[in-house]
Amino acid sequence: MPILPIIENPPKPSWKSLLTRPVIEPDGLRDTVREILEDVKAHGDPAVDKYAQRFDKTFLKERRVSQQELEEAASHLSEELKTAIRQAKKNIETYHRQQLTVEPVVETVPGIRCWRRSSAIEKVGLYIPGGTAPLFSTLLMLGVPARLAGCEEIVVCSPPQKDGSLHAAVLYTANLLGIQRVFKVGGIQAIAAMAFGTQTIPAVYKIFGPGNQYVTQAKKAIQQDGIAIDMPAGPSELAVYADDTASASFVAADLLSQCEHGSDSQVILVTDHRDFAVQVNDSLASQLEKIPRKSVAMKSLGNSKIIILDDPAVSIEFLNEYGPEHLILVCRDAEMLAEMVRNAGSVFIGNYAPESAGDYASGTNHTLPTNGFARAYGGVGVDSFVKKISFQQISREGLEAIGKTVIEMATAEGLEAHAEAVRIRLGT
Amino acid sequence: MPILPIIENPPKPSWKSLLTRPVIEPDGLRDTVREILEDVKAHGDPAVDKYAQRFDKTFLKERRVSQQELEEAASHLSEELKTAIRQAKKNIETYHRQQLTVEPVVETVPGIRCWRRSSAIEKVGLYIPGGTAPLFSTLLMLGVPARLAGCEEIVVCSPPQKDGSLHAAVLYTANLLGIQRVFKVGGIQAIAAMAFGTQTIPAVYKIFGPGNQYVTQAKKAIQQDGIAIDMPAGPSELAVYADDTASASFVAADLLSQCEHGSDSQVILVTDHRDFAVQVNDSLASQLEKIPRKSVAMKSLGNSKIIILDDPAVSIEFLNEYGPEHLILVCRDAEMLAEMVRNAGSVFIGNYAPESAGDYASGTNHTLPTNGFARAYGGVGVDSFVKKISFQQISREGLEAIGKTVIEMATAEGLEAHAEAVRIRLGT
Repeated sequence: MPILPIIENPPKPSWKSLLTRPVIEPDGLRDTVREILEDVKAHGDPAVDKYAQRFDKTFLKERRVSQQELEEAASHLSEELKTAIRQAKKNIETYHRQQLTVEPVVETVPGIRCWRRSSAIEKVGLYIPGGTAPLFSTLLMLGVPARLAGCEEIVVCSPPQKDGSLHAAVLYTANLLGIQRVFKVGGIQAIAAMAFGTQTIPAVYKIFGPGNQYVTQAKKAIQQDGIAIDMPAGPSELAVYADDTASASFVAADLLSQCEHGSDSQVILVTDHRDFAVQVNDSLASQLEKIPRKSVAMKSLGNSKIIILDDPAVSIEFLNEYGPEHLILVCRDAEMLAEMVRNAGSVFIGNYAPESAGDYASGTNHTLPTNGFARAYGGVGVDSFVKKISFQQISREGLEAIGKTVIEMATAEGLEAHAEAVRIRLGT
Repeated sequence: MPILPIIENPPKPSWKSLLTRPVIEPDGLRDTVREILEDVKAHGDPAVDKYAQRFDKTFLKERRVSQQELEEAASHLSEELKTAIRQAKKNIETYHRQQLTVEPVVETVPGIRCWRRSSAIEKVGLYIPGGTAPLFSTLLMLGVPARLAGCEEIVVCSPPQKDGSLHAAVLYTANLLGIQRVFKVGGIQAIAAMAFGTQTIPAVYKIFGPGNQYVTQAKKAIQQDGIAIDMPAGPSELAVYADDTASASFVAADLLSQCEHGSDSQVILVTDHRDFAVQVNDSLASQLEKIPRKSVAMKSLGNSKIIILDDPAVSIEFLNEYGPEHLILVCRDAEMLAEMVRNAGSVFIGNYAPESAGDYASGTNHTLPTNGFARAYGGVGVDSFVKKISFQQISREGLEAIGKTVIEMATAEGLEAHAEAVRIRLGT
């Protein structure tokens, strides 16, 4: 039996059901999350401790990571890993630095100068999942743009390991980024703590970072309380469009790299070559035997499929409807097809652009919209850590030029005092 | 009795309570909103009709505005108003066009080219409040950047007047912008319809626009369902910083223009001159008599105050803590102080820059963060209508340059298949 089902030229009305994502929200999740948020909001640290004990089975006297722990982390890591983290940091910086932009002043009419200035969000919170893997790469992906933006107070929360510590690679990365406010707390209680503040964990204005369904639901919920988040999140996903110029074994390796993330991941391969589809299935079968997280990957493969579409333009239309987090294009005219992509988080072009390059070290950000949210959201960048303030400087001449317009419109909207603020200045 | 209470040099610990906003969320609002959202999601148009009848006392056979209605609107407006709307549109376009940016390609290491491309959000919804005033200016402020961004499907919802029509100025503006999908529906049911789609109203990916507390709560709630919104909103507000170079009557006029918006508006005047504070209070008293919406303004003035702070730098610190939607600076060194502003929606500089200039016609956007959300959000711009997709093109040489780094980091994170996707390509 082939690993992935192959569906040939599905008619357009069937696309929506073909592209259904794995369901991610268990019943009652919203209520549970709201209850914990309110408890932490009302009681602070004791509530955080209560849920940490209940869910993570950890009891810690001190949640804040000490300066000593941050500094000593380097001694627990190999030179190879430290070099790798530093190279990734450098590439991420090189790429993200281009996003620091200064906008021009626009004189809309003589005497009216308008402009915007980017201003860092002063207090931000970064959530770094622990769980099955210590995601220090995510700390790089969030910490580098936060630093470049100039955020003053960067708070990091990450669930402790069984021994009550954070993984040395997470601590080393935090220290490398000059982040000092690192707390050993995870889950809903971590999001609640950063949203409302506790006796030890400072409140922030915006919270970033991936997480399981509990963390995700908590992030969505705190938006109701006016705290901003990077984006809603669902399980990670990858779509590949490949023709016969692609390597079946490379593509199979990419699909598996996505599938090892979690059992709710999803991959979609679209191709115009039936033979290629069969080759990828064969390669999946043999490569699957070699990976340590085989059982996880098997489950994600169960959410996944291969779609045959004869026309490349139709394939891109299909992929735009899906709006994948990651999209790999390995085909003729890949750059032209890339121009047609409208809904995707990050696009990888060519046989030598595996998703894992962007996950770690090519420089682009790996915090990306999942679950079709690419239709409305882009990935995290420096812009995610600033807000733009608009300014205008108006001379008497400038106000004279638009005065009549303002008075006319304000009067039509029934806002007479708005008109009066112009009249009193111009003596009209 | 002075109109506004004057508070002299309040100590820093008292700032937070001084800067409290009027409470805006009634008990039970969240549940009511969720119930209506679910009903419209499940039943579509009939549910929309039910709530329109219940809340707006309107019963319409046809909710969609016809092409004829759009085209005929012009004949119901004065030439002066049409000229004003066209001038405002032109200035808003001039200013926002600068926000259409193309980012450079960055070669992070030789063989790895990375870039981002802005892609319009295909389907957006604009909510235009009716209520006490037909806000066609808001339609300009949302429609112009949506058009510049290139959004394909722009849906407008606005509550009908008692006679079942939309105000001619709203229809004229929609037609001027080339927006054809205009629907006569308001309130929670309008947000629900655009979020989930009904038989007649298309679902969109992101919803924009101000509204009363019901609309605001509905917008916040649909984020839980994965629909994006421009920003959370609260009542409109204005802060003014003025020294003795300011005109007391101009400042009083600006405060009143803000206060006429709604009884839950708030204004804060900060000054280093006691005499000036008294003059503004006197001027408020006399100007208040002249405005038609006096009773509304009186209520907002009850939420408002004058603060005396002797040091301009402390004043800006105070204002940054407040994070006002609108901030007027009329003082010496205003440009220098403007540079120190970190939390505000839009800043107006000088004696001839009333808020109403920016509300209508200077070119900047008037959809701005209220309620302190300026700490994490900027106002609406072209960026609000696009999302940025990242791209990377990697050669074999490029992958070789970062291969070791990716393998090292993936292995440390326990993601072996991620490492394998690189190894299989490089034969290592």
